[in-house]
Amino acid sequence: MNMPNPIEFYFDFASPYGYFGATRISAIAAKHGRKVAWKPILLGVVFKVTGMAPLPTLPLKGDYSVRDMQRVSRLWKIPFNLPSKFPIPGQAPSRIVYWLESQHPEKQEAAILALYHTYFVEDRDISAPEVAADVVSSLGIDRNALLAATQDQAMKDRLRQEVDAAIAKGVFGSPFVVVDGEPFWGSDRLEHVERWLATGGW
Amino acid sequence: MNMPNPIEFYFDFASPYGYFGATRISAIAAKHGRKVAWKPILLGVVFKVTGMAPLPTLPLKGDYSVRDMQRVSRLWKIPFNLPSKFPIPGQAPSRIVYWLESQHPEKQEAAILALYHTYFVEDRDISAPEVAADVVSSLGIDRNALLAATQDQAMKDRLRQEVDAAIAKGVFGSPFVVVDGEPFWGSDRLEHVERWLATGGW
Repeated sequence: MNMPNPIEFYFDFASPYGYFGATRISAIAAKHGRKVAWKPILLGVVFKVTGMAPLPTLPLKGDYSVRDMQRVSRLWKIPFNLPSKFPIPGQAPSRIVYWLESQHPEKQEAAILALYHTYFVEDRDISAPEVAADVVSSLGIDRNALLAATQDQAMKDRLRQEVDAAIAKGVFGSPFVVVDGEPFWGSDRLEHVERWLATGGW
Repeated sequence: MNMPNPIEFYFDFASPYGYFGATRISAIAAKHGRKVAWKPILLGVVFKVTGMAPLPTLPLKGDYSVRDMQRVSRLWKIPFNLPSKFPIPGQAPSRIVYWLESQHPEKQEAAILALYHTYFVEDRDISAPEVAADVVSSLGIDRNALLAATQDQAMKDRLRQEVDAAIAKGVFGSPFVVVDGEPFWGSDRLEHVERWLATGGW
């Protein structure tokens, strides 16, 4: 019997809806016998292709989106504060996630959620390699190895390749979920992801 | 006892998600004892303020959005084709809707749904006053009066005022729903609208 494809979960570490989606995706996947392939990307690079910009910077839509984020956080009971420094570049935590994929795959999800929590609840700047390494080392991983991963040329290349591959696939936002080739954008499409997994599509 | 506020439903006649939302909003409103205040707007004017652009024209996001529209149409069983001429200017059908508000309020919703159907199912260009008047006259309204409404200075002014007022309120997309001052953007937020109506907010 073949293993079903993992669910690809694309996200940016500065994305509030990426954070909301990350807290829910693995339960959705597990319910349908799927794993999650965690794919941190850099929306700043993507936005150069699409001409888009970070949500809170947009006229009208920016104010609304902050209100919507707070409303979603209350509805789903996921703690959330708009960080004082926003957005931030995601290179350091993203490289750590790809390094964990080969070195400590069983800790990848916990590391992602801890990093998101540090940024969106504790308002600490996880773009700093020292902060990102501190957070993930609390899961029992060597801090120096984590720091090294943030500067590792192989991880720099990997992240760049993943961002390019994501754009080539049509990924333009965060979170962005791909199930057996079918794309779903936004945390408010997780209900469609669930239904797609349950039914095989419509 | 005071009547509860109507639900304000802002929409553009060239908006696929506005069409999807329009087919559902009055049932949601009625379930909670509310009326719908129908508010056609012109996204082209709004986009000048926000720097946004019609969905299908955007790199990556455009292709995705067409796929998502088709997927939503199948899921909700609402017939939909991306029109061959897209987007179109909504002045003529929008002025008719504001004219109906005072002249035939009981036919406003049926007229909106018929106009949307003509554009998104029959692929006929409802931006032409003759086409819009034909469609709405089939509901038993005088065709010449409808044609006159599309050129009526009072209706031109009303539409312009409504668009300005919508922007001043923070409306930036279609559909956009306001419940007792609380804003909800997008057809995928109708579940939140329902919950807000049921609970009074969270």
